[in-house]
Amino acid sequence: MSDATAQVSRRRHAQGRVEIARDEVAREEPLELRVGGASLAVVMRTPGHDRELALGFLVTERVVASADQVVSVRHAQVAPDEASAENVVQVVLAPEVSVDLDRLRRNLYASSSCGICGKATIEDALATAPPLDDPTRVPGTLFAGLTEQLRAQQAGFASTGGLHAAGLFSAEGERLVVREDIGRHNAVDKVVGWAARAERLPLRGCVLLVSGRVSFEVVQKALAARIPIVAAVGAPSSLAIELAERASIGIVGFLRDGGFNLYGHAQRVLG
Amino acid sequence: MSDATAQVSRRRHAQGRVEIARDEVAREEPLELRVGGASLAVVMRTPGHDRELALGFLVTERVVASADQVVSVRHAQVAPDEASAENVVQVVLAPEVSVDLDRLRRNLYASSSCGICGKATIEDALATAPPLDDPTRVPGTLFAGLTEQLRAQQAGFASTGGLHAAGLFSAEGERLVVREDIGRHNAVDKVVGWAARAERLPLRGCVLLVSGRVSFEVVQKALAARIPIVAAVGAPSSLAIELAERASIGIVGFLRDGGFNLYGHAQRVLG
Repeated sequence: MSDATAQVSRRRHAQGRVEIARDEVAREEPLELRVGGASLAVVMRTPGHDRELALGFLVTERVVASADQVVSVRHAQVAPDEASAENVVQVVLAPEVSVDLDRLRRNLYASSSCGICGKATIEDALATAPPLDDPTRVPGTLFAGLTEQLRAQQAGFASTGGLHAAGLFSAEGERLVVREDIGRHNAVDKVVGWAARAERLPLRGCVLLVSGRVSFEVVQKALAARIPIVAAVGAPSSLAIELAERASIGIVGFLRDGGFNLYGHAQRVLG
Repeated sequence: MSDATAQVSRRRHAQGRVEIARDEVAREEPLELRVGGASLAVVMRTPGHDRELALGFLVTERVVASADQVVSVRHAQVAPDEASAENVVQVVLAPEVSVDLDRLRRNLYASSSCGICGKATIEDALATAPPLDDPTRVPGTLFAGLTEQLRAQQAGFASTGGLHAAGLFSAEGERLVVREDIGRHNAVDKVVGWAARAERLPLRGCVLLVSGRVSFEVVQKALAARIPIVAAVGAPSSLAIELAERASIGIVGFLRDGGFNLYGHAQRVLG
């Protein structure tokens, strides 16, 4: 058992029999990101790699223009109780950075003046993170072993069945990092935060692999981290594909059973 | 093809062969909820049943205390263009209802003064929606056919592999409604919104079935709609189980392969 899992008692019904046993489930706890005295966001996450999650969130939600604008990310030193301290990270930004809390909330909560639709949402994403200028192309054979590499690192999923995973790979298929979380977006943020701490941003020439589906938000985060290829075990959405086309990102969907489908900037994968 | 899906071109790599074909994917578009002149929230959703989604969101996020506080929910009549009009719903609330936009944002974004942790999050949920007072108990045999009933109604999933589903069933296993969405929470909100429009709230004696996992937020929404049993094909999280225990909600997890596990208020299911 790790920070990522918790033990519970459960009753199992199967084949007409009932048994009571202990079981491991994925942990879920709120994490608050504070900048100065202000609350930037609260995300429901699986504890572990919290500082990476915070750093990745700041980058992929474009609160900062680059990771070097973040001076420090630390768990809170002062809190009403121990549990709270574990669930609050305090971020210190470089003096020249002004956080536009309103902009962040507007991104998540309100429409632009030109109306609300997929097209406007895509324009908004591209306004702060322009399309990739990255010549990366990879052979289709690269993807054959990636999901097995991801699964081999999914300790939490193996024991709970309740965690998403995201992994980062080089263009040669080398595994760089794998992170798990109950929230699929958090798993991506943890991966990007790992890269930020390792001073590997922007992630030119890299492949992001996610265990679930590809939503608009996953592609938006890849764009902010400058990742040219997003691969997934599941299906992409219409808006994820549209943003990928505009941003020059390739989407590898339904990566399973020895095959995959290409969407978005399909030229990323040599046919 | 329906509003819920879109056609795209994709390249398929499998068994060493490459083919290009048309493919159906799940649609994803932003939907803005407006109350008066203010933007209440923007959710990324699959178009279709937008008014149910809006109504369900208002109930499960506890913007209103009951559905009869909502006078009307309509698509916008005035918008910059047609796409925008489809993606904006205008809500009119009863005169006595004051919307506390700050409270809604605080719920999602900031911590309470007593600290941030799972316990505080659960107390906050129970403060506005007390534990269920509903004697419902069902036999374990009820769940055998539910997932097949759900799957039979998942037209969008069948064609795209990219949609979550939520279904509502009576304590006798009768299917009341099934809704799909790219967001698992939206599928639940659409189901609750359907019930609100049918004047079936509170949902005493009902079973909510979701196609994915059970997060804290899913149980919180069930609690707001007063649903005593949440069943899922996937795994529950630690915090979902803790809230369910406190709220007298039974969780049926891993409902597949002829069995299931019981968590939370397990007495809901007769052993």
